[in-house]
Amino acid sequence: MNGTDLIHALQNRYACKVFDPEKKIDTETWAALEASLVLTPSSFGLQPWRFIVIQDQALKESLVAHAWNQRQVADCSHLVVMTAHRSMPENHIDANIRRMIEVRGGTAEALAGFRSMVAKFRDSAEQQGWLDTWAKLQSYIALGQFMTAAAVLGVDTCPMEGFVAAKFDDILGLHGTDYTTAVLCPAGYRAETDKYAVLPKVRFEAADIVEHR
Amino acid sequence: MNGTDLIHALQNRYACKVFDPEKKIDTETWAALEASLVLTPSSFGLQPWRFIVIQDQALKESLVAHAWNQRQVADCSHLVVMTAHRSMPENHIDANIRRMIEVRGGTAEALAGFRSMVAKFRDSAEQQGWLDTWAKLQSYIALGQFMTAAAVLGVDTCPMEGFVAAKFDDILGLHGTDYTTAVLCPAGYRAETDKYAVLPKVRFEAADIVEHR
Repeated sequence: MNGTDLIHALQNRYACKVFDPEKKIDTETWAALEASLVLTPSSFGLQPWRFIVIQDQALKESLVAHAWNQRQVADCSHLVVMTAHRSMPENHIDANIRRMIEVRGGTAEALAGFRSMVAKFRDSAEQQGWLDTWAKLQSYIALGQFMTAAAVLGVDTCPMEGFVAAKFDDILGLHGTDYTTAVLCPAGYRAETDKYAVLPKVRFEAADIVEHR
Repeated sequence: MNGTDLIHALQNRYACKVFDPEKKIDTETWAALEASLVLTPSSFGLQPWRFIVIQDQALKESLVAHAWNQRQVADCSHLVVMTAHRSMPENHIDANIRRMIEVRGGTAEALAGFRSMVAKFRDSAEQQGWLDTWAKLQSYIALGQFMTAAAVLGVDTCPMEGFVAAKFDDILGLHGTDYTTAVLCPAGYRAETDKYAVLPKVRFEAADIVEHR
């Protein structure tokens, strides 16, 4: 992709207010978007998340009331619920180490130094009270990558913070797990009636927010 | 861009450990990457950030010691320092409203309801102690969008959390401002000697982190 096409795709992206409920993301396009979730970078490669992808209409409808009645939750093609660890347990670090060995070979002994460093980071973050925030920050990288990936594929999205996380956790069965709902991203295709689609995008001038040194 | 090319670009992306200091991002490519920063989506469109882009070699070198001596900070082509509001002031909301009017027309009176809602959100976040976290979360959307944009343009990046924010704030003159260093993203081109470039990417299996409902 060249720079001009990228800018065009990002200019065309907006927070979709009205999805066309009849237009679904096809299997091949969804596969690429799901890959973009899986491939999201994270601190230490720890991937402290799970992504719940909802297409079931009744389940989507049951969540609308807990997202300020925003219809995008139900009218989108795929609702992505990004969940993050509340307090990433040490066994998640071990799962990551096992996966490293599976993919790259090597031994747990060779990775002992790495494991120790990550475990210290984890314990320090927990003691200082920001382990949950750290995991949530990682999920926002996934949000950014997913929206950008969707934009370059011509898929519309709507990032959403305005929801009742406890209700989402209830309905999605996350209580009793270490995961909690971090942020939402409905994806699909804009309805022709969405008047927000044609509004000029509001951003500060580059000169006001980008400083060169 | 099609899904196959997107997956290829994201597979090719990795946390670059060794940049080639001789390879610089050209003007046209940088313009697209800077546009990707400016166009980053944010909650309420508030853009609670400033991006400091550093090409000055001496300035980059002075930051290395405060980022665990990671040479990427100095050897990259463009070092992007993503800063976020510590405690977004109400006048930032007003600046956003003025920009909305400038871009879309309309009046402050017509936007009074929106302004009031956002100001309430701001005050509530401040009282509950998460206004700084909220702003930092938004900067991670920028991080995600920037890394993905770079990947599709064939530019290498290295997201970095491991740095001493207070030292960065010192050197960059952010003390006394409402901005603080949130996260770093050196960008440029990988050196041929970077052995990490050819390691298989470690991600959990999609089946283990993506749940379909």
